[in-house]
Amino acid sequence: MKPWHHKHILTLSNFSKDDFHSVLELAHRFSCINKTGTKKVPALQGLLVTSIFFEASTRTKHSFELAAKRLSADLQSFSPSSSSLSKGETYLDTALTYSAMGSDVLIVRHSISNVPLEIAAKLESKKFETSVLNAGDGTHSHPSQGLLDLYTLSKFFDPISINPDILFNKTILIVGDVLHSRVARSNIWALTAFGANIILCGPEKLVPQKFNTFIQSLPSNQSKDPISERGKIEISRSLDESIKNADAIISLRLQKERMNENFLDSINSYSENYCLTTEKLNLTTKKIPILHPGPVNRGIEISSKIVDDYPYCLITEQVKNGVPVRMALLYLLSKYNQN
Amino acid sequence: MKPWHHKHILTLSNFSKDDFHSVLELAHRFSCINKTGTKKVPALQGLLVTSIFFEASTRTKHSFELAAKRLSADLQSFSPSSSSLSKGETYLDTALTYSAMGSDVLIVRHSISNVPLEIAAKLESKKFETSVLNAGDGTHSHPSQGLLDLYTLSKFFDPISINPDILFNKTILIVGDVLHSRVARSNIWALTAFGANIILCGPEKLVPQKFNTFIQSLPSNQSKDPISERGKIEISRSLDESIKNADAIISLRLQKERMNENFLDSINSYSENYCLTTEKLNLTTKKIPILHPGPVNRGIEISSKIVDDYPYCLITEQVKNGVPVRMALLYLLSKYNQN
Amino acid sequence: MKPWHHKHILTLSNFSKDDFHSVLELAHRFSCINKTGTKKVPALQGLLVTSIFFEASTRTKHSFELAAKRLSADLQSFSPSSSSLSKGETYLDTALTYSAMGSDVLIVRHSISNVPLEIAAKLESKKFETSVLNAGDGTHSHPSQGLLDLYTLSKFFDPISINPDILFNKTILIVGDVLHSRVARSNIWALTAFGANIILCGPEKLVPQKFNTFIQSLPSNQSKDPISERGKIEISRSLDESIKNADAIISLRLQKERMNENFLDSINSYSENYCLTTEKLNLTTKKIPILHPGPVNRGIEISSKIVDDYPYCLITEQVKNGVPVRMALLYLLSKYNQN
Repeated sequence: MKPWHHKHILTLSNFSKDDFHSVLELAHRFSCINKTGTKKVPALQGLLVTSIFFEASTRTKHSFELAAKRLSADLQSFSPSSSSLSKGETYLDTALTYSAMGSDVLIVRHSISNVPLEIAAKLESKKFETSVLNAGDGTHSHPSQGLLDLYTLSKFFDPISINPDILFNKTILIVGDVLHSRVARSNIWALTAFGANIILCGPEKLVPQKFNTFIQSLPSNQSKDPISERGKIEISRSLDESIKNADAIISLRLQKERMNENFLDSINSYSENYCLTTEKLNLTTKKIPILHPGPVNRGIEISSKIVDDYPYCLITEQVKNGVPVRMALLYLLSKYNQN
Repeated sequence: MKPWHHKHILTLSNFSKDDFHSVLELAHRFSCINKTGTKKVPALQGLLVTSIFFEASTRTKHSFELAAKRLSADLQSFSPSSSSLSKGETYLDTALTYSAMGSDVLIVRHSISNVPLEIAAKLESKKFETSVLNAGDGTHSHPSQGLLDLYTLSKFFDPISINPDILFNKTILIVGDVLHSRVARSNIWALTAFGANIILCGPEKLVPQKFNTFIQSLPSNQSKDPISERGKIEISRSLDESIKNADAIISLRLQKERMNENFLDSINSYSENYCLTTEKLNLTTKKIPILHPGPVNRGIEISSKIVDDYPYCLITEQVKNGVPVRMALLYLLSKYNQN
Repeated sequence: MKPWHHKHILTLSNFSKDDFHSVLELAHRFSCINKTGTKKVPALQGLLVTSIFFEASTRTKHSFELAAKRLSADLQSFSPSSSSLSKGETYLDTALTYSAMGSDVLIVRHSISNVPLEIAAKLESKKFETSVLNAGDGTHSHPSQGLLDLYTLSKFFDPISINPDILFNKTILIVGDVLHSRVARSNIWALTAFGANIILCGPEKLVPQKFNTFIQSLPSNQSKDPISERGKIEISRSLDESIKNADAIISLRLQKERMNENFLDSINSYSENYCLTTEKLNLTTKKIPILHPGPVNRGIEISSKIVDDYPYCLITEQVKNGVPVRMALLYLLSKYNQN
């Protein structure tokens, strides 16, 4: 395995192919351990992992915490409701507090973009050695989801070696609320790195035309794209047309809780056009895998029939893969600290 | 110990005498370990136990979680408030998520009857090997409480071998809100299995007359009662008369949080007639043990004096016994999975 | 190390010099372990520690829980929101429940003074061997905070041996809302025990004149002060004057959440007079360490500039020291139980 150079994991825009390969190889190894009787690995014994979720979560939080436990780390779990946030503490001070207690890795989720980045910068300025792992920030990034989706797709197309190079020239259709989706953004960085082409599909309001140049503008704090040539991005308004060209589909969540009444009125028309149904899938003859970050709004993004009965619906597979992928991330960060 | 045939523990109506004996014997052994210096047993090392309490709980949740820790299992604890429930996820999808992460046992509480049964069916249909342990569902069932009460009563009457056969022909008085009580229902299945006779005591509104045929109607998905001859059930409106015939009393909680104003008005008259007080207990000369699933509404179901000073009030004893009984259940389920 | 005689830790008013020395020596040893690779100590393996925080907390709760984990204890964490408190259970019954489950140490925080004392008395009367560790009760006491502040100040002035005797005749300025502060009270008992003199500084409303006789009135259940001669207490209204005489400053939190509108109106005038700023600190030439129990209201008690850049601002140091100090307390209580 190649050396690991990231102290923090905040985005996938700065991941090299080697970085992606390291995560997937390691995750593959951990997933084999998970199948044996002894599910625990003593790799992170004594390490302190702290999950700080300023925003609600089921899958991601418990998946990370389970990953930490499987590696025998000590775990602190911070839930804002029972905390000093009600006393007006800033998120930076909260993060400093846990670092001061001796946390080795902070797993941070926040509804505002770039909070994990800010926290990482603050900790660096205070000479803390704590790593920050972004578990989802605003509409910006959700690296572990992007990686587990990469793992899940690679495994679907290459079940033996789970090599993401298999995705070269494949067409991945991402359908739904791309505008508000950090998952979509992380998927794009991960998939285009291996030469997959992306179709972003949805109405103008949710998939603005400008997204076709998304990978050409790097974050302001990043000078260079570590990937020399990425796959292409295309925008489409027609799910029917897109499905005909797709090798795989990633369906996104309509984040109803963030939408106003006007928007909710138009959900029906959204579903008519963009909900994945048996009818839509019959437009193609390929075995197209369907991914979704969950939780699914059944009948809005995907029909219940597809969720429950379609053999290539990989939603629970994604949840399953999340654990070894996150074990890999925690393990790699712990190695950085030891160098 | 006899072989164990239950993949899930959802009700006590399908427990054979052998099943009850297995749980009590094992619980007895675990309670002895709990008294020694080394309280931890490596029996479930690497196993993942997930507690999903859709309904608030102190005793049961922490008792189960402690049982899992004592057996060295890994533990995931799901609390709805900080979760995706706010995003509209169904309880079936929540359960699937944790199974997909690799959970070996889901401990489920829900305010709606039969939710754990539904979850177990769903997981089976999806070929998951996860066991479901009902920690209380609506007014239906609360098996671990029924078992710890069986343990507590057996221990009271037979402190050496804790054999429930001692309950044959004993009269157990269950007083209070039987109608809404899953505890009462589980108590009835457990106690009548060993030939104990039950008096259900309370006003018509809380103890409808039809309860006297309760054990004659099995759940719709159960064809046969594994117990050839059960104890009898009698309905009584008079606590005074009932106490004179009782060998033990189980007092139930008035679930004030589920009652409307009209009902609350009549709490005083309820207490006058059905609250366990020193005066009431003086109607008998026997040493009658008193059980209550907790938390007690002092002065409504039981007087504070009885709770604090009556030597045969076994409420804290019940809490204590809950841990080894739940250790036994988790252990037995883990053995099923290995067969 | 001297023998340990406290079954419960409820206040610092009954701590002898030997007691303080025992805690600090042990904490020093644990802090050295925390720096090595193997952060875990098997000292409390199998012991059950339960944290019951009826009041919100970040630092203290997680610090105690981490201390318990570092010592390999089993941990139960009770959060009122997801519990039977909503069903009307009293705090005494909650405490009894956890003791009955087998808890060896209850760590209790409550918004009402003396609740931990009441709980300890109740458990004793019921013959439980459970220890109670006060994690902050109303305005009464916060022993672990008092001890970690003692540790932090001793370490600042005596980095090698961390001996609190170094504080003899030093002047410690405590500024802010002394009236509502359990931290201030525990600080006073701890610091005066070693002959430090205290200046309490703030407006009359927050620092009533009568506080100058605070250490002369022992709690009603304590007959004797184990300290033969304590440092002195002085009241001051002028921060400027006080700073000139101080060797160290402890700034307290304005508990905004407990204050009414009238009070909030006067926060600006409070800040003008009592906020620690660069300007104020320039009134002295000494290197004065600044402590604060956190979370800080930036710009009200301490300027952001001081919090972020002043080299002797020890707030994160306090958080860091909290873990080994609390490990020491849990360890000492476990030793009491074994005697």
